[in-house]
Amino acid sequence: MSGTPLYPRVALIGLGLIASSMFWSARRSGAIGHVVGYARSAETRETARRIGLCDSVVDSVAAAVRDADLVVLATPVGAMGAVMQDIAPHLKPGALVTDVGSVKRRVIEDVTPHLPAGVDFVGSHPMAGTEHSGPEAGFASLFDNRWCLIVPVEGTDPAVIDRLERFWQALGAETERMDADHHDMVCAVVSHIPHLIAYTMVGVADDLRRVSDREVIKFSAAGFRDFTRIAASDPTMWRDVFLTNRDATIEVLGRFTEELFALQRAIRTGDGEQLHAYFTRTRAIRRSILEAGQDTDKPDFGRVHVDR
Amino acid sequence: MSGTPLYPRVALIGLGLIASSMFWSARRSGAIGHVVGYARSAETRETARRIGLCDSVVDSVAAAVRDADLVVLATPVGAMGAVMQDIAPHLKPGALVTDVGSVKRRVIEDVTPHLPAGVDFVGSHPMAGTEHSGPEAGFASLFDNRWCLIVPVEGTDPAVIDRLERFWQALGAETERMDADHHDMVCAVVSHIPHLIAYTMVGVADDLRRVSDREVIKFSAAGFRDFTRIAASDPTMWRDVFLTNRDATIEVLGRFTEELFALQRAIRTGDGEQLHAYFTRTRAIRRSILEAGQDTDKPDFGRVHVDR
Repeated sequence: MSGTPLYPRVALIGLGLIASSMFWSARRSGAIGHVVGYARSAETRETARRIGLCDSVVDSVAAAVRDADLVVLATPVGAMGAVMQDIAPHLKPGALVTDVGSVKRRVIEDVTPHLPAGVDFVGSHPMAGTEHSGPEAGFASLFDNRWCLIVPVEGTDPAVIDRLERFWQALGAETERMDADHHDMVCAVVSHIPHLIAYTMVGVADDLRRVSDREVIKFSAAGFRDFTRIAASDPTMWRDVFLTNRDATIEVLGRFTEELFALQRAIRTGDGEQLHAYFTRTRAIRRSILEAGQDTDKPDFGRVHVDR
Repeated sequence: MSGTPLYPRVALIGLGLIASSMFWSARRSGAIGHVVGYARSAETRETARRIGLCDSVVDSVAAAVRDADLVVLATPVGAMGAVMQDIAPHLKPGALVTDVGSVKRRVIEDVTPHLPAGVDFVGSHPMAGTEHSGPEAGFASLFDNRWCLIVPVEGTDPAVIDRLERFWQALGAETERMDADHHDMVCAVVSHIPHLIAYTMVGVADDLRRVSDREVIKFSAAGFRDFTRIAASDPTMWRDVFLTNRDATIEVLGRFTEELFALQRAIRTGDGEQLHAYFTRTRAIRRSILEAGQDTDKPDFGRVHVDR
């Protein structure tokens, strides 16, 4: 990118994995001008200054958003309403506020009542992450070829939404627009419930005294390891996801346990046909994901070298 | 390796992912002499001949095991009893029969009653695999640094067990001995239940009409993809695993649903403390797996290039 930055001045509120990756990625692309960073914890601000994260790091949220053209709420979802209340009096007319939370209906409900006149809110959900968190976890390529869902609120000027989409695209992401309720249901299915299940399975393995922790860890490559990987994400972030996307997660959980009980019954009664039919159907879904180019089909999932 | 092969003549019964990988791996190591292959399906035998899988491929199971020093049952677990019955009259005195199934109590119950005098059985469970199956799916490095659990039956000559362990080590695996019941419980926890849950989640996503298949596939990188990967394994193999390891899977499933309901209740009642404590504990387990060297902690699990 060259020429005028999409947003001359950007404020990142919260300096974890996502915000720090946004900074490094924006740096790479030239999509934004000056970046001010703020984090509630003095230790995080210290770390940010030490590693050169953001052009400047300030000690108050009011100073961070002053004159900013784009304000990014990158705190846990449960804190966004309070942050919005704090920054509202200091926002520049014409500014855009966005967030990077994994839930949208609740964020919109918490944030928009505090919006001053002349300031817009459009939600963002960059669907990217690692099992690491904190200001040192970020890297420039985190969003490359990942989806960022854009969730506008009604009545927003299309030009404002367009610019935010172009911003995420400059950071490497592909964008798609979605309304808040549909967003929350899609994410419950593809992300929130898979994470909850992974957390549960890891907890069960740890609890089951008949199998030692040493064995669980030693033999984890047999399937369990993929669960621990997704169960290692930030606990505060995930607590807030489940508390704020309650309705969709409870609905999908209900379907999941219904289905699991049906398979459990097939196991108990020895109904091999039902099990085989079910496993054949899910295999086809995996094939579709490969065909859609969303993963590699290399043996061992790209982790080992293949030779004969 | 050099010198005398551990087993001068080996018969592979069933020519899927595991048996074909055993052949390529043994070829690489020199651990065995002549390898005879047999598969029930004429099409599989044809494929094996075409790609040079095994030194010879024969059309009857009797011909395959004749004069073999080691016979490997590499069929689905549910078929092993019948195969053993078929081969019993043709086994050479002093031969060793092993299997590569994921369940052991049932295999031992099905196989050992048919053992002729002078023939031993020791179970093997190479904990390695990919989402691919069939004679063309195998590769030489599949077992490298993976565990192969060795499950002896009581009264077996220690020298016979030792030689089988050395054989798997020559194929690249690390070995550990375990009794059959403990093996089946460990595998229920680290492998069977994680697979069942992944199958279920993929099925639920496909069923939930409020989220389109297109969306499930498109946004799968958000966590769901790790589930589809393990849910893509061979349906026949997994059907047999659940039918033959029923008691352990039902026990672990019971613990899993108990735990999942407790988390669901915490979500419904808004108990953030309980969720946070649970997620913090599972994160620690993930850390142990990294420390044990069973996985990589690279961002995005080693899939993306990291730069700033």
